[in-house]
Amino acid sequence: MKSEFVRILTNLGFPDNKAVQCAEIFTLNSLEGVYSHGVNRFPRFVEYVRKGYIKPDAVPSLVHSAGALEQWDGNLGPGPLNAVVATEKAMELASGNGIGLIALKNTNHWMRGGMYGWMAARRGFVFIGWTNTEANMPAWGAKDFRLGNNPLVIAVPYKDEAIVLDFAISQFSYGKLEIYQHEGKPLPYPGGFNEKGELTVNPGEILATRRALPIGYWKGSGLSLLLDILASVLSGGLSTHEISQKEAEYSLSQVFIAICLENLVNSGSIEKTVHDIIKNVKESCPAESGTEIRYPGENIVKVREENRKNGIPVNKDVWEKILSL
Amino acid sequence: MKSEFVRILTNLGFPDNKAVQCAEIFTLNSLEGVYSHGVNRFPRFVEYVRKGYIKPDAVPSLVHSAGALEQWDGNLGPGPLNAVVATEKAMELASGNGIGLIALKNTNHWMRGGMYGWMAARRGFVFIGWTNTEANMPAWGAKDFRLGNNPLVIAVPYKDEAIVLDFAISQFSYGKLEIYQHEGKPLPYPGGFNEKGELTVNPGEILATRRALPIGYWKGSGLSLLLDILASVLSGGLSTHEISQKEAEYSLSQVFIAICLENLVNSGSIEKTVHDIIKNVKESCPAESGTEIRYPGENIVKVREENRKNGIPVNKDVWEKILSL
Repeated sequence: MKSEFVRILTNLGFPDNKAVQCAEIFTLNSLEGVYSHGVNRFPRFVEYVRKGYIKPDAVPSLVHSAGALEQWDGNLGPGPLNAVVATEKAMELASGNGIGLIALKNTNHWMRGGMYGWMAARRGFVFIGWTNTEANMPAWGAKDFRLGNNPLVIAVPYKDEAIVLDFAISQFSYGKLEIYQHEGKPLPYPGGFNEKGELTVNPGEILATRRALPIGYWKGSGLSLLLDILASVLSGGLSTHEISQKEAEYSLSQVFIAICLENLVNSGSIEKTVHDIIKNVKESCPAESGTEIRYPGENIVKVREENRKNGIPVNKDVWEKILSL
Repeated sequence: MKSEFVRILTNLGFPDNKAVQCAEIFTLNSLEGVYSHGVNRFPRFVEYVRKGYIKPDAVPSLVHSAGALEQWDGNLGPGPLNAVVATEKAMELASGNGIGLIALKNTNHWMRGGMYGWMAARRGFVFIGWTNTEANMPAWGAKDFRLGNNPLVIAVPYKDEAIVLDFAISQFSYGKLEIYQHEGKPLPYPGGFNEKGELTVNPGEILATRRALPIGYWKGSGLSLLLDILASVLSGGLSTHEISQKEAEYSLSQVFIAICLENLVNSGSIEKTVHDIIKNVKESCPAESGTEIRYPGENIVKVREENRKNGIPVNKDVWEKILSL
């Protein structure tokens, strides 16, 4: 998979090292089971490079330093590569200042936000990051798209791995709704409104009204709004509203916060603290017998091992399309 | 209201200035309509002081400085006063470093988290803060309490006021469920599970199972867990699990992050950016005609004005109890 990606990216004008790095990220996202932001998304990434929305050789540049906070311009470079640089810079700032924040404007879709959480947490840092997106969700009480689903990532180190929360503010993505519809299945829980304005588990009804639910009803609606305000205010970049006026989703605004755990007074006992919290939650009394209570990111480790052993499963059509690129 | 609070707090051993400051916070929370963490909560605050969980004259002390991040001990002082100090210290750190984080252990219930968001945002700072709590919500897939509802606050300046998101990770508090039950009304949206493990709008059924819903189902469950891990790891204080082993909810862990907007390269255009985002969202097409699309904190300004004009409404029983203290 990686060598196919490298071939295609090199042909698109990516410098060698950037082609490899970008291919590695798309492959890793697939290896860890996030196909929607790995192999399945790769053709659209290629399309965006061809259309000029993503500049293969652009790198982020420092706009302004305010101490432990820096504002950077992504110069429309590849989103995952820009995000890796921003995460590294946030960790550098955190190493010197305890905490560091990089606000990045004019960047592109970072694909799988959890990537950057894993990256920072496995090097001993807490990570908090989010991106804005084009409008793809109605505000609470509204029916047209004015909010983004603005994925949020929070990660902490955990043994040799990490605990990584990585979620969009919409309850179900449109991609997920389409999968349920395709399979003729109801959603496991209400995911949006039908034409009568009632909550429904019918994916087709939600795809018709486009009124997908933010997490926590009005609470997620507010969270999405604040994440967009912070991303655009802190970076000086475009808001969801402005991105949505473009012909495609590019020039996003993102925030990367790293916190250094090594210099804390309790650094020696952090591993035990996290272990005790996870142990306690995993020992919950399950609502249905046999249900395992999981922490965020737990499943990634399992899928990674499975895919390492058995290979990364790919959709035949997607893979043939990639081979033809 | 304030003078009654001052009288009671002074009798409890609060130094004069702290009695006044604490009375002002409880009164302001009531003035702004958050009665549950204002006047209605005051008797329990008094009870906790009497039981020794809250030390009237304790003040926070610096444990460890790691640059733009500091770890503080709340020494079991009054939660709202500790939180005000932590917010001020976070702003000081942010003024010098762009961003500042105060992690506070061994503190008490901060009452209304939005207070500290308003305080920082009206002075030109972005605020992100959260607290852990005792366990009061089951993890996703579980039926016993292992997670806290861990309120999260995000605030940004907006004209002379602020946009302040202030929410608990449970969809409805138990207090709110009890109000709906008392009034014989269904919840407006599903808020938890009934005995059969089905989502329900019946508050009585949820109060019976105690399986209240986290926002966004499994997503809020993960968010609550991460907020607790971060609060206890960063402060070196107690986790939800440890707090829940005490005889009452005290010795909490909290995080206060401030970001200085004044030193950003785009500081001159921030007000317009926020204005444009809010204007766009408020101009959404409402799902039902006549519905107003609101931003977080918008209603606070209205309630504050109403209560200034007409007085703060109080529950007769609550007020008589306070007069008797």
